[in-house]
Amino acid sequence: MLEEFFQPKTIAVIGASRETHKVGHQIFKNLLGNVAAGFIPPVGTDRPPYKVYPVNPKTNEILGVKTYPSIKEIPEKIDLVVIVIPTEFVAQTLIDCGERGTKAVIIITAGFKEIGGEGYKREQQILEIARKYGIRILGPNCLGLLNPHYFLNASFVSFLPKKGEIAFISQSGALCSAVLDWAKAEEVGFSKFVSLGNKADLNEIDFLLSLVDDEETKVILAYLEGIENGQKFIRIAKEVTKKKSVIVLKPGKTAGGKKAISSHTGTLAGMEQAYEAAFKQAGIIRAESMEELFDYGLVFAYQPLPKGKRVAIITNAGGPGIMATDQIESLGLQLAFFQEETITFLRNNLPSQANIYNPVDVLGDAPAKRYKLALEALIKDENVDAIVVLLTPQAVSEVEQTGEIIVQLAKEANKPILACFMGEAGVEKTRKFLNQNKIPNYAYPERAIACVKALVEYKNWREEASASSQLISPPGMIISTEEKRKAEEVLTKVKKEKRLNLIDLEINEILSLYGFKFPKSGLAKADEEAVSLAEGIGYPVALKISSPEILHKTDFGGVRLNLTNKDAVRDAFEAMVLRSKKFFPEAEIYGCLVQEMVEKGKEVILGLHRDVQFGPLVMFGLGGIYVEVLKDISFRVAPFSLEEAKEMMKEIKGYPLLQGIRGEKGVDLDLLAALIMNLSQLALDFTEIMELDINPLFVYPVRNGGLSHGVNKEPIVVDAKLTIKIE
Amino acid sequence: MLEEFFQPKTIAVIGASRETHKVGHQIFKNLLGNVAAGFIPPVGTDRPPYKVYPVNPKTNEILGVKTYPSIKEIPEKIDLVVIVIPTEFVAQTLIDCGERGTKAVIIITAGFKEIGGEGYKREQQILEIARKYGIRILGPNCLGLLNPHYFLNASFVSFLPKKGEIAFISQSGALCSAVLDWAKAEEVGFSKFVSLGNKADLNEIDFLLSLVDDEETKVILAYLEGIENGQKFIRIAKEVTKKKSVIVLKPGKTAGGKKAISSHTGTLAGMEQAYEAAFKQAGIIRAESMEELFDYGLVFAYQPLPKGKRVAIITNAGGPGIMATDQIESLGLQLAFFQEETITFLRNNLPSQANIYNPVDVLGDAPAKRYKLALEALIKDENVDAIVVLLTPQAVSEVEQTGEIIVQLAKEANKPILACFMGEAGVEKTRKFLNQNKIPNYAYPERAIACVKALVEYKNWREEASASSQLISPPGMIISTEEKRKAEEVLTKVKKEKRLNLIDLEINEILSLYGFKFPKSGLAKADEEAVSLAEGIGYPVALKISSPEILHKTDFGGVRLNLTNKDAVRDAFEAMVLRSKKFFPEAEIYGCLVQEMVEKGKEVILGLHRDVQFGPLVMFGLGGIYVEVLKDISFRVAPFSLEEAKEMMKEIKGYPLLQGIRGEKGVDLDLLAALIMNLSQLALDFTEIMELDINPLFVYPVRNGGLSHGVNKEPIVVDAKLTIKIE
Repeated sequence: MLEEFFQPKTIAVIGASRETHKVGHQIFKNLLGNVAAGFIPPVGTDRPPYKVYPVNPKTNEILGVKTYPSIKEIPEKIDLVVIVIPTEFVAQTLIDCGERGTKAVIIITAGFKEIGGEGYKREQQILEIARKYGIRILGPNCLGLLNPHYFLNASFVSFLPKKGEIAFISQSGALCSAVLDWAKAEEVGFSKFVSLGNKADLNEIDFLLSLVDDEETKVILAYLEGIENGQKFIRIAKEVTKKKSVIVLKPGKTAGGKKAISSHTGTLAGMEQAYEAAFKQAGIIRAESMEELFDYGLVFAYQPLPKGKRVAIITNAGGPGIMATDQIESLGLQLAFFQEETITFLRNNLPSQANIYNPVDVLGDAPAKRYKLALEALIKDENVDAIVVLLTPQAVSEVEQTGEIIVQLAKEANKPILACFMGEAGVEKTRKFLNQNKIPNYAYPERAIACVKALVEYKNWREEASASSQLISPPGMIISTEEKRKAEEVLTKVKKEKRLNLIDLEINEILSLYGFKFPKSGLAKADEEAVSLAEGIGYPVALKISSPEILHKTDFGGVRLNLTNKDAVRDAFEAMVLRSKKFFPEAEIYGCLVQEMVEKGKEVILGLHRDVQFGPLVMFGLGGIYVEVLKDISFRVAPFSLEEAKEMMKEIKGYPLLQGIRGEKGVDLDLLAALIMNLSQLALDFTEIMELDINPLFVYPVRNGGLSHGVNKEPIVVDAKLTIKIE
Repeated sequence: MLEEFFQPKTIAVIGASRETHKVGHQIFKNLLGNVAAGFIPPVGTDRPPYKVYPVNPKTNEILGVKTYPSIKEIPEKIDLVVIVIPTEFVAQTLIDCGERGTKAVIIITAGFKEIGGEGYKREQQILEIARKYGIRILGPNCLGLLNPHYFLNASFVSFLPKKGEIAFISQSGALCSAVLDWAKAEEVGFSKFVSLGNKADLNEIDFLLSLVDDEETKVILAYLEGIENGQKFIRIAKEVTKKKSVIVLKPGKTAGGKKAISSHTGTLAGMEQAYEAAFKQAGIIRAESMEELFDYGLVFAYQPLPKGKRVAIITNAGGPGIMATDQIESLGLQLAFFQEETITFLRNNLPSQANIYNPVDVLGDAPAKRYKLALEALIKDENVDAIVVLLTPQAVSEVEQTGEIIVQLAKEANKPILACFMGEAGVEKTRKFLNQNKIPNYAYPERAIACVKALVEYKNWREEASASSQLISPPGMIISTEEKRKAEEVLTKVKKEKRLNLIDLEINEILSLYGFKFPKSGLAKADEEAVSLAEGIGYPVALKISSPEILHKTDFGGVRLNLTNKDAVRDAFEAMVLRSKKFFPEAEIYGCLVQEMVEKGKEVILGLHRDVQFGPLVMFGLGGIYVEVLKDISFRVAPFSLEEAKEMMKEIKGYPLLQGIRGEKGVDLDLLAALIMNLSQLALDFTEIMELDINPLFVYPVRNGGLSHGVNKEPIVVDAKLTIKIE
């Protein structure tokens, strides 16, 4: 996919310039430089090198190459066009490209969506042209792209990195520069390097699809400020991550960061919780900083996945060994417990003062040979899933030889080996050597261990993802077409009345169709009706004001609980209606809802919010103070599987309260998961639902365990709010 | 202090060797090298260079210098002796040093406490010799020390770093090597460099005291695996940090890390919570990794403290600006809001596409001059407390000139300025230049912002610490001598009976003397007595088994609540005593405690644990599931101030529950803080108290606010356990 971008046979630079300080000069020079330097076709192919044509109507030659006044004059079809001309000429040039049959265009030029207003319109215009001619566009407002395996530098970055396994796609051009500069010094190679710019046409989804089957790419790194189509992104990324690791840095976690994003590229940022959930569901490894992005990138590019989470440490220094151990435990990994043979071998071969248990301390005076002994033993040990080799350069340390030994042994190891050669002056050379030979090196033990953690998590994801799971409710809880139709009727009626908020009875009806239970209740329009409903339900009852305009009922006394006789019901009804009319003179009062007082259960909250990028975001948490004070909640983007619904419950810190602590019985978690699935289904069935809050849902201890309608006491919705949009 | 260690006039190396691979050769060469290189006396002094004598009975000269067979033969008094001879000869040599009047000795030799058993005894022996002669010892089992300002390298590290403002003391010799290696490459200087080794005599406390008034030291960095005397450490460090910043890396946070520490140096690790609390109370900045240790070290060495937490960003790249903004907000700092003049100036002087609000985006094509304009404006702006300058090396970036401008402007800035020049190849030279000129540079924006956060926290500490605060209970809650004496009587009685656990009535008595209230109660030895006590207290009552051997009463039904009549009391008494005898046939049963049922309040837990390193550790948390499931607890080492007791309460996540949420009244926090102070006092008064758990303490909403015995309903201890030790 996108072959004309990554392996074009003919390229034209429109806006190529003779003036050396101009971007149009740099790009042409970059392309020419690679051709001039002699293009070597990939092994096993006879593909010819690409040709580069400069287009500039005001001159005859640039850097010794004949120019063409326009693309129309170039005698052959052009695979890839790079446009670097003033904004106002881009549209017409794009038409010319279309007429000449070019299908791949990089627009370097800025002045589009990122400046708002007029720029936004211009971007729409070029997009329409592109659609008309079937042209795919990278950019505008981007740096271009690089394909080191094809000696292609179609960007204005003056440096083409060496060939490697890492693909990098970035929504920030400046970050590309910094990364290439770092790669240059550290001898890190890349497979593809793409500056996304404004993403008018091609975006992260296109490149994920293009890179997933790219043989030269082993890991995909991305810096993204926003995601174009959240639902599609999750669907595609989920398939991609089953084959290749994808690591994403997505800033904008805080309100300030979001604001900065929108002023930077005009990207809508969406809810942080939605990104967090989406990345998790798509198996994407999220980097929290640039440092993590590249730390992870290296280890995924260079090393195999571990079989498990048992980590071994070899060190010539106690302190760093301790720090590594701390990090292993903090991150939920495990300090490997060696096999008997390993311990015996180490005891017989290391000096008596060495620590032969994990972390293995080969002592400060360890020569390379001693590292070799230890490393060989741990590679053989089946109780060891990953190895981190620590070294501080001490008086007698053989830094280079130790590096060579790691490189040598890692080749046959079949388990990830990471290095942490600390210091700088004494290890710089070896660090580069390690990079060249696919051993990632980290300046500090904590970072190396964090990388092992990322490997383990990805390995777990691969295993889980391959067990294909259904994205629908479990049997017995599936919503029928008839149920859906009935819910639709309710919503249609509400929309007809141009209301955004549903009243209790409507919410009850819809949620009941989707498997939720409610207390017995009825709407009373007058006090005597309230009394007769109460007598039917049985005392005690609760009374709640019913009005589409009144959302926060408790604040002004719109809810009365535990009414035990008819006088109390009558008084409450009258007082409530009176107060409502006083506080909300404009509100339409339907009457009062008379409700059964239900047995108090554990409070759970289920919510639904429609995110601007990802669509339906389902929330789960324990109710009351857990949500309000402790913010102990978890999220998933619908659709998701039953397993994911269960994961979602496990994620909250208060999960043990649902399982039951201090000998008390837990609640029916299967049933709760099924209800979450139904909520997700509801969100997918009706895109007009914008917000839904079930708070609280009372859940009760299990009697017999398991998903069991009618056996366990089913959860009861005590209160719910639902808001829709009207197109 | 410790002048003979840091500025000796005469030095002897005992165990100096001709064999170049030996440590004794390297140390002598290091010392000689610096003398030979020409010692330059510090400006304003006429101190002569130091002289170095090699001691070795088996040779006549080493590196051209005449050797002496023993220290006794050296014609002049030796200020500092470095010992590098086999373990078994160290003791006698130390005696020789003592006889010759030497007061400062570095023992490089290993084979002492760190190997356990015999080694432990040897260490005791040399310590006794040292005490006898008034010798201070650094080590044994250490690398030595360095004082770059005095051209002194009394270690076997072959490199003397340049002069600087950072003092580094380390319990890991290997870490010293790594740090020096890094410092060499990055042009980072040091004031003092100390490898602590086994800390037989001199430890972190001695060096803190020595460095606090050292004019060459601006910041003290330490890597510590354990602390020798926790109480003294806090007391001293608290005074030191009022003058100088102290940054500590202390691994061993996890059980695995602790185990690794004890197998590394034989250091007892103590509770992580005690370290966390102690560092906080002492104003120590805790680094979470080596990376943070040096990140912080540089900024504290190079830059002034900020006045507040308002941070400004200048960047030539949007992405990193967003990441910086995210980090500012995540860490609780504030994105500075510029003055009107600044915005006007930036609007008039930066290109129209630049972002003139914070983060200031000077755009990808920014030359050095544009950075200068922005930086000058932000330095002048009084709404800006700290500035972070981000740069990614792009096509037209003037990296070196931009670095020069920062250096120039920072000199007069009077607010901290940090750099974040990303990449490597294109910025390496400038990064070193910045280091040389006291501008700390960080590879990633997140790290730079974390450093600003550390500066702000330290600045806050300095201000708080200078407001001297009392470490005793507030007026009205101070424990009298008489009250203390009465509590002592109870404990004396328990100790006489050789019991470790106190029974309820004894705990009630002691805690009552220290200001805690209890439900009305009495001990019943027979059922009828229980009934009559219950009638006196008034129904409902609670019954609890009373036995020093039964600690977890609820587990087997040793507690019954809400007994409403005499039959219920009688039944409960009999059943409880019967069960107790069945489950604990060996236990002495005193009877049952009959207790008033108290109004349910918010559950709080107060605890006391005697830590091996720091002594009395006081715990605070919300009771029940908050402690058990959410681990939402905070700690302080006694003694502490009333302000610290209040901080301790604020630290827990559930604090809003104590303040009152959703319109409900908060609890009397002053009164609660006073009780915490009294608990701390109890711990200090009676060192035999090992564990005390008040769980739960019921606390009630305020009526009138403020510390007000008799006005607000006072907290009531519902249950408490107390364990002592008997010498």
